[in-house]
Amino acid sequence: MNPCRSAVSLARGLARFGDLRAQRTIAGLNDYEVELAKVKGEFVRHTHQETDELFLVVHGRLTIRLRDGDVTLGAGESFMVPRGFEHCPVADEETHILLVEPAGVINTGDAGGPLTRAAEPLG
Amino acid sequence: MNPCRSAVSLARGLARFGDLRAQRTIAGLNDYEVELAKVKGEFVRHTHQETDELFLVVHGRLTIRLRDGDVTLGAGESFMVPRGFEHCPVADEETHILLVEPAGVINTGDAGGPLTRAAEPLG
Repeated sequence: MNPCRSAVSLARGLARFGDLRAQRTIAGLNDYEVELAKVKGEFVRHTHQETDELFLVVHGRLTIRLRDGDVTLGAGESFMVPRGFEHCPVADEETHILLVEPAGVINTGDAGGPLTRAAEPLG
Repeated sequence: MNPCRSAVSLARGLARFGDLRAQRTIAGLNDYEVELAKVKGEFVRHTHQETDELFLVVHGRLTIRLRDGDVTLGAGESFMVPRGFEHCPVADEETHILLVEPAGVINTGDAGGPLTRAAEPLG
Protein backbone atom coordinates (compact mmCIF):
# COMPACT_ATOMS: atom_id res chain seq x y z
CA MET A 1 0.00 0.00 0.00
CA ASN A 2 1.35 3.37 -0.99
CA PRO A 3 1.82 5.28 2.28
CA CYS A 4 0.14 8.34 0.85
CA ARG A 5 -2.94 6.20 0.60
CA SER A 6 -3.31 5.55 4.27
CA ALA A 7 -5.90 6.95 6.63
CA VAL A 8 -5.33 10.35 8.20
CA SER A 9 -6.19 10.44 11.88
CA LEU A 10 -7.39 13.90 12.85
CA ALA A 11 -6.17 13.38 16.42
CA ARG A 12 -2.73 12.17 15.39
CA GLY A 13 -2.49 14.96 12.84
CA LEU A 14 -3.39 17.58 15.42
CA ALA A 15 -0.88 16.14 17.86
CA ARG A 16 1.85 16.73 15.32
CA PHE A 17 1.59 20.49 15.23
CA GLY A 18 2.07 22.28 18.45
CA ASP A 19 1.26 25.86 17.62
CA LEU A 20 -2.04 27.43 18.29
CA ARG A 21 -3.27 29.18 15.17
CA ALA A 22 -1.44 26.63 13.00
CA GLN A 23 -3.32 25.42 9.95
CA ARG A 24 -2.31 22.31 8.02
CA THR A 25 -3.60 20.70 4.86
CA ILE A 26 -4.39 17.01 5.37
CA ALA A 27 -5.87 16.22 1.97
CA GLY A 28 -6.48 17.67 -1.43
CA LEU A 29 -9.90 17.11 -2.93
CA ASN A 30 -9.85 18.10 -6.58
CA ASP A 31 -9.07 21.82 -6.35
CA TYR A 32 -10.19 21.99 -2.73
CA GLU A 33 -8.26 21.43 0.46
CA VAL A 34 -9.16 19.81 3.74
CA GLU A 35 -7.33 21.51 6.57
CA LEU A 36 -6.91 21.06 10.28
CA ALA A 37 -6.43 24.06 12.51
CA LYS A 38 -5.70 24.68 16.15
CA VAL A 39 -7.13 27.97 17.28
CA LYS A 40 -7.49 29.96 20.45
CA GLY A 41 -8.56 33.53 20.97
CA GLU A 42 -10.12 35.92 18.53
CA PHE A 43 -9.27 35.74 14.86
CA VAL A 44 -9.70 38.71 12.56
CA ARG A 45 -13.09 39.75 11.19
CA HIS A 46 -12.94 39.04 7.48
CA THR A 47 -14.85 38.07 4.37
CA HIS A 48 -14.20 35.62 1.54
CA GLN A 49 -15.90 37.23 -1.40
CA GLU A 50 -15.17 34.32 -3.70
CA THR A 51 -16.05 31.24 -1.70
CA ASP A 52 -18.09 29.51 0.96
CA GLU A 53 -16.10 28.01 3.83
CA LEU A 54 -16.98 24.94 5.88
CA PHE A 55 -16.11 24.67 9.57
CA LEU A 56 -16.37 21.45 11.57
CA VAL A 57 -15.32 21.50 15.21
CA VAL A 58 -13.35 18.40 16.20
CA HIS A 59 -12.57 19.44 19.76
CA GLY A 60 -13.43 22.46 21.86
CA ARG A 61 -15.85 25.23 21.08
CA LEU A 62 -15.87 27.84 18.34
CA THR A 63 -18.03 30.90 18.06
CA ILE A 64 -18.37 32.40 14.62
CA ARG A 65 -19.46 36.00 14.91
CA LEU A 66 -21.57 37.12 12.00
CA ARG A 67 -23.15 40.51 11.35
CA ASP A 68 -26.57 39.27 12.41
CA GLY A 69 -25.62 37.04 15.31
CA ASP A 70 -23.25 34.42 16.61
CA VAL A 71 -23.12 30.73 15.79
CA THR A 72 -21.45 28.57 18.41
CA LEU A 73 -20.18 25.13 17.49
CA GLY A 74 -19.21 22.34 19.84
CA ALA A 75 -17.39 19.16 18.87
CA GLY A 76 -19.19 17.38 16.05
CA GLU A 77 -20.96 20.50 14.87
CA SER A 78 -20.49 22.17 11.52
CA PHE A 79 -21.35 25.45 9.90
CA MET A 80 -20.95 26.76 6.39
CA VAL A 81 -20.09 30.43 6.13
CA PRO A 82 -21.53 31.60 2.82
CA ARG A 83 -19.33 33.60 0.49
CA GLY A 84 -19.50 37.32 1.15
CA PHE A 85 -20.45 36.87 4.81
CA GLU A 86 -18.22 38.75 7.18
CA HIS A 87 -17.22 36.44 10.00
CA CYS A 88 -14.88 36.35 12.95
CA PRO A 89 -14.04 32.99 14.56
CA VAL A 90 -13.43 33.13 18.28
CA ALA A 91 -12.37 30.33 20.62
CA ASP A 92 -12.16 30.88 24.36
CA GLU A 93 -10.36 27.57 24.81
CA GLU A 94 -8.00 25.62 22.56
CA THR A 95 -10.17 24.38 19.76
CA HIS A 96 -9.48 22.04 16.86
CA ILE A 97 -11.32 22.50 13.63
CA LEU A 98 -11.54 20.95 10.23
CA LEU A 99 -11.96 23.33 7.31
CA VAL A 100 -12.91 22.64 3.72
CA GLU A 101 -12.41 25.33 1.10
CA PRO A 102 -10.85 25.85 -2.30
CA ALA A 103 -7.06 25.57 -2.39
CA GLY A 104 -5.29 28.88 -2.02
CA VAL A 105 -7.94 30.71 -0.07
CA ILE A 106 -6.32 33.32 2.15
CA ASN A 107 -7.15 32.60 5.79
CA THR A 108 -7.78 36.25 6.60
CA GLY A 109 -9.81 36.86 3.42
CA ASP A 110 -10.06 40.54 2.57
CA ALA A 111 -8.76 41.66 5.96
CA GLY A 112 -5.09 40.78 5.63
CA GLY A 113 -2.88 41.60 8.59
CA PRO A 114 -0.43 39.74 10.78
CA LEU A 115 -2.51 36.55 11.08
CA THR A 116 -2.36 35.95 7.35
CA ARG A 117 -0.62 32.73 6.51
CA ALA A 118 -0.83 29.89 4.04
CA ALA A 119 -1.87 26.44 5.19
CA GLU A 120 1.15 24.14 5.09
CA PRO A 121 0.99 20.44 4.39
CA LEU A 122 0.88 18.25 7.47
CA GLY A 123 4.48 17.04 7.45
CA MET B 1 -30.73 34.67 13.40
CA ASN B 2 -31.91 33.02 10.25
CA PRO B 3 -32.48 29.37 11.18
CA CYS B 4 -30.62 28.19 8.10
CA ARG B 5 -27.58 29.83 9.61
CA SER B 6 -27.41 27.66 12.67
CA ALA B 7 -24.93 24.93 13.49
CA VAL B 8 -25.50 21.43 12.15
CA SER B 9 -24.85 18.74 14.72
CA LEU B 10 -23.63 15.59 13.02
CA ALA B 11 -25.06 13.45 15.80
CA ARG B 12 -28.47 15.10 15.75
CA GLY B 13 -28.51 14.95 11.97
CA LEU B 14 -27.68 11.27 11.97
CA ALA B 15 -30.36 10.58 14.56
CA ARG B 16 -32.93 12.04 12.20
CA PHE B 17 -32.56 9.47 9.48
CA GLY B 18 -33.22 5.95 10.45
CA ASP B 19 -32.26 3.97 7.40
CA LEU B 20 -28.95 2.31 6.95
CA ARG B 21 -27.51 3.28 3.58
CA ALA B 22 -29.27 6.65 3.76
CA GLN B 23 -27.26 9.63 2.58
CA ARG B 24 -28.24 13.21 3.37
CA THR B 25 -26.81 16.55 2.37
CA ILE B 26 -26.13 18.76 5.38
CA ALA B 27 -24.47 21.70 3.63
CA GLY B 28 -23.63 23.07 0.25
CA LEU B 29 -20.15 24.45 -0.22
CA ASN B 30 -19.97 26.35 -3.49
CA ASP B 31 -20.68 23.57 -6.00
CA TYR B 32 -19.76 20.85 -3.51
CA GLU B 33 -21.88 19.04 -0.98
CA VAL B 34 -21.20 17.85 2.52
CA GLU B 35 -23.15 14.69 3.20
CA LEU B 36 -23.80 12.38 6.10
CA ALA B 37 -24.34 8.69 5.52
CA LYS B 38 -25.26 5.69 7.59
CA VAL B 39 -23.81 2.53 6.13
CA LYS B 40 -23.58 -1.13 6.98
CA GLY B 41 -22.46 -4.04 4.87
CA GLU B 42 -20.69 -4.03 1.55
CA PHE B 43 -21.36 -1.27 -0.94
CA VAL B 44 -20.72 -1.75 -4.66
CA ARG B 45 -17.25 -1.59 -6.17
CA HIS B 46 -17.21 1.54 -8.29
CA THR B 47 -15.13 4.40 -9.67
CA HIS B 48 -15.69 8.13 -9.96
CA GLN B 49 -13.78 9.05 -13.07
CA GLU B 50 -14.44 12.74 -12.66
CA THR B 51 -13.76 13.47 -9.02
CA ASP B 52 -11.90 12.76 -5.81
CA GLU B 53 -14.09 11.82 -2.84
CA LEU B 54 -13.41 12.52 0.83
CA PHE B 55 -14.48 10.12 3.57
CA LEU B 56 -14.41 10.96 7.27
CA VAL B 57 -15.66 8.37 9.74
CA VAL B 58 -17.76 9.90 12.52
CA HIS B 59 -18.72 6.66 14.24
CA GLY B 60 -17.91 3.02 13.62
CA ARG B 61 -15.40 1.57 11.24
CA LEU B 62 -15.16 1.68 7.47
CA THR B 63 -12.90 -0.35 5.22
CA ILE B 64 -12.34 1.04 1.75
CA ARG B 65 -11.20 -1.74 -0.52
CA LEU B 66 -8.87 -0.52 -3.25
CA ARG B 67 -7.19 -2.50 -6.00
CA ASP B 68 -3.86 -2.45 -4.19
CA GLY B 69 -5.03 -2.89 -0.63
CA ASP B 70 -7.53 -1.91 2.00
CA VAL B 71 -7.70 1.28 4.03
CA THR B 72 -9.57 0.98 7.31
CA LEU B 73 -10.87 4.08 9.04
CA GLY B 74 -12.04 4.40 12.63
CA ALA B 75 -13.86 7.36 14.09
CA GLY B 76 -11.96 10.58 13.46
CA GLU B 77 -10.03 9.18 10.52
CA SER B 78 -10.28 10.39 6.96
CA PHE B 79 -9.26 9.21 3.55
CA MET B 80 -9.41 10.80 0.13
CA VAL B 81 -10.19 8.40 -2.71
CA PRO B 82 -8.53 9.89 -5.79
CA ARG B 83 -10.55 10.18 -8.97
CA GLY B 84 -10.32 7.09 -11.14
CA PHE B 85 -9.59 4.79 -8.18
CA GLU B 86 -11.90 1.84 -7.98
CA HIS B 87 -13.13 1.50 -4.41
CA CYS B 88 -15.62 -0.47 -2.40
CA PRO B 89 -16.65 0.77 1.05
CA VAL B 90 -17.45 -1.98 3.54
CA ALA B 91 -18.72 -1.61 7.11
CA ASP B 92 -19.12 -4.65 9.33
CA GLU B 93 -21.02 -2.59 11.88
CA GLU B 94 -23.30 0.42 11.56
CA THR B 95 -21.00 3.24 10.59
CA HIS B 96 -21.58 6.95 10.17
CA ILE B 97 -19.55 8.88 7.68
CA LEU B 98 -19.18 12.39 6.41
CA LEU B 99 -18.53 12.76 2.69
CA VAL B 100 -17.39 15.78 0.71
CA GLU B 101 -17.68 15.75 -3.05
CA PRO B 102 -19.04 17.84 -5.90
CA ALA B 103 -22.82 18.18 -5.97
CA GLY B 104 -24.54 15.63 -8.17
CA VAL B 105 -21.95 12.88 -7.94
CA ILE B 106 -23.64 9.51 -8.32
CA ASN B 107 -23.03 7.43 -5.20
CA THR B 108 -22.37 4.26 -7.20
CA GLY B 109 -20.15 6.03 -9.76
CA ASP B 110 -19.76 4.03 -12.93
CA ALA B 111 -21.24 0.86 -11.44
CA GLY B 112 -24.90 1.81 -11.22
CA GLY B 113 -27.24 -0.83 -9.87
CA PRO B 114 -29.85 -1.00 -7.14
CA LEU B 115 -27.86 0.97 -4.55
CA THR B 116 -27.84 4.06 -6.76
CA ARG B 117 -29.60 6.95 -5.12
CA ALA B 118 -29.34 10.70 -4.86
CA ALA B 119 -28.42 12.30 -1.56
CA GLU B 120 -31.48 14.07 -0.18
CA PRO B 121 -31.37 17.16 1.98
CA LEU B 122 -31.50 16.51 5.68
CA GLY B 123 -35.11 17.51 6.32
